[in-house]
Amino acid sequence: VSEAFYRHPTALVESSDIGPHTRIWAFAHVMRGVRIGREVNVGDHCFIETGVSIGDGVTIKNGVMLWEGVRVENFVFIGPGVVFTNDRNPRSPRFPPVAERYRGKRWLSLTVVEESASIGANATLLSGITIGRFALVSAGAVVTGDVPAHGLAMGVPARVVGYVSDTGRRLKFSKTGEARCPETGRRYRLRRGKILYVD
Amino acid sequence: VSEAFYRHPTALVESSDIGPHTRIWAFAHVMRGVRIGREVNVGDHCFIETGVSIGDGVTIKNGVMLWEGVRVENFVFIGPGVVFTNDRNPRSPRFPPVAERYRGKRWLSLTVVEESASIGANATLLSGITIGRFALVSAGAVVTGDVPAHGLAMGVPARVVGYVSDTGRRLKFSKTGEARCPETGRRYRLRRGKILYVD
Amino acid sequence: VSEAFYRHPTALVESSDIGPHTRIWAFAHVMRGVRIGREVNVGDHCFIETGVSIGDGVTIKNGVMLWEGVRVENFVFIGPGVVFTNDRNPRSPRFPPVAERYRGKRWLSLTVVEESASIGANATLLSGITIGRFALVSAGAVVTGDVPAHGLAMGVPARVVGYVSDTGRRLKFSKTGEARCPETGRRYRLRRGKILYVD
Repeated sequence: VSEAFYRHPTALVESSDIGPHTRIWAFAHVMRGVRIGREVNVGDHCFIETGVSIGDGVTIKNGVMLWEGVRVENFVFIGPGVVFTNDRNPRSPRFPPVAERYRGKRWLSLTVVEESASIGANATLLSGITIGRFALVSAGAVVTGDVPAHGLAMGVPARVVGYVSDTGRRLKFSKTGEARCPETGRRYRLRRGKILYVD
Repeated sequence: VSEAFYRHPTALVESSDIGPHTRIWAFAHVMRGVRIGREVNVGDHCFIETGVSIGDGVTIKNGVMLWEGVRVENFVFIGPGVVFTNDRNPRSPRFPPVAERYRGKRWLSLTVVEESASIGANATLLSGITIGRFALVSAGAVVTGDVPAHGLAMGVPARVVGYVSDTGRRLKFSKTGEARCPETGRRYRLRRGKILYVD
Repeated sequence: VSEAFYRHPTALVESSDIGPHTRIWAFAHVMRGVRIGREVNVGDHCFIETGVSIGDGVTIKNGVMLWEGVRVENFVFIGPGVVFTNDRNPRSPRFPPVAERYRGKRWLSLTVVEESASIGANATLLSGITIGRFALVSAGAVVTGDVPAHGLAMGVPARVVGYVSDTGRRLKFSKTGEARCPETGRRYRLRRGKILYVD
């Protein structure tokens, strides 16, 4: 049968819910039931587990692992080697004292990456958090809590050290509380930790 | 020949010392001579080098690399993307001034992960260390020294910031020096940095 | 046709510019146009993108991803799970407001790892930087700027905390400003942040 998406000959694709113009590269593994939108790029050596949902226009660079409980919205960028998690208190499920805990799904905690956010290379995301729209997580950061929309999060543990524009440029606020994106000229205002569009 | 363990068709398994009910998943590579116990789960894209020994009931999530000199005891959890090491002063062995050093095994330093410990996602373990029984290394930590039994290690470099129960729950000690696991109710006492069972 | 280099049967090697005695291991992927010198070792699950140049005698441990814009000189050691980058403001290229930016190569920033340097396991390198000759980046470090020749860089973000010898040993400078490598006996002097050879 013809498929509207591309898969590299070595990729394992067990899902049939994949949008057109999506490309899945070498040695990647997409499990059954995964939902992937259109025009998504899944790099070499990625692993996407049953229960994951990925929007349209997403870029997932090489070696990324996405677990059940992760939702990735449209136009997100996930850098190489980013590691998601879905368990705040991991133990091996065959260790008898925790076998009961792992019988159901109570151990599972959810993570959402909202539209057009970017996660830098080799960042680690603890579970149970939301990365807001247009946020930028720096490379190597370890994110332990929510990142607000447009927030720039950095370090271990990650702290919000500033804000970025829709296109990912650092915003420098003037004394009047306004900033202009150096790339697009779009104006932003910061009010009580929230970014507002001026125009 | 029939095998008592499962290997994904794309997995490379060169060892024959693998226990029953162990599962080795896609694009993983287990070299010859590796010893793996029973009911172990080795995720996609893992690499396990000759000289590694893994106990029973261990969970090794995807993309983990285990090198010669690493010993993993029963019921350990190793999170996705965890990176072990075995050389404290790495140089490329073909660099002539170090060629002599790499002829033998003097450069090799050993790492032990003791029973039922957990290593969080994308943590990095320097070599020559021991992760004690029931210890919990947080996601993204860079561990440069020993972690005591039940210790909770966090950060870069990792520090012991508290203690966890057998099942991995944070212990909060009362003024009498006792803590109760919120999951099992088991009682613990902390004496001179060591966790003791009250019951 | 015979090839002077070794490729594992599962490796994807699309380049023909690979030197003799180089070995490319399981599930690795080397794209077309990549230049790799002689006696290089490329570990399992590595990915090397078109536009990368690698010198002679280099060791690239497993799971390393090298992107367009990265140049690796002779005798470099790159530890397991090291992640390079080439974009300081990443967004998904299909996000319409950045589509124009990703049409050309203006977004690309270059990284150089100079001769005989070592990058420790699971380190992250931001782009647009140079790792100097004989430098040693510690495991798990997040490098955001240049590291000088012989510099020892550590932490998140990485700081230069000392210096190492040609063979990677920490140098301890005496009051006279001189240090001797504990491995080779070679003498070094530190002047204005630069390492000089005494002999």
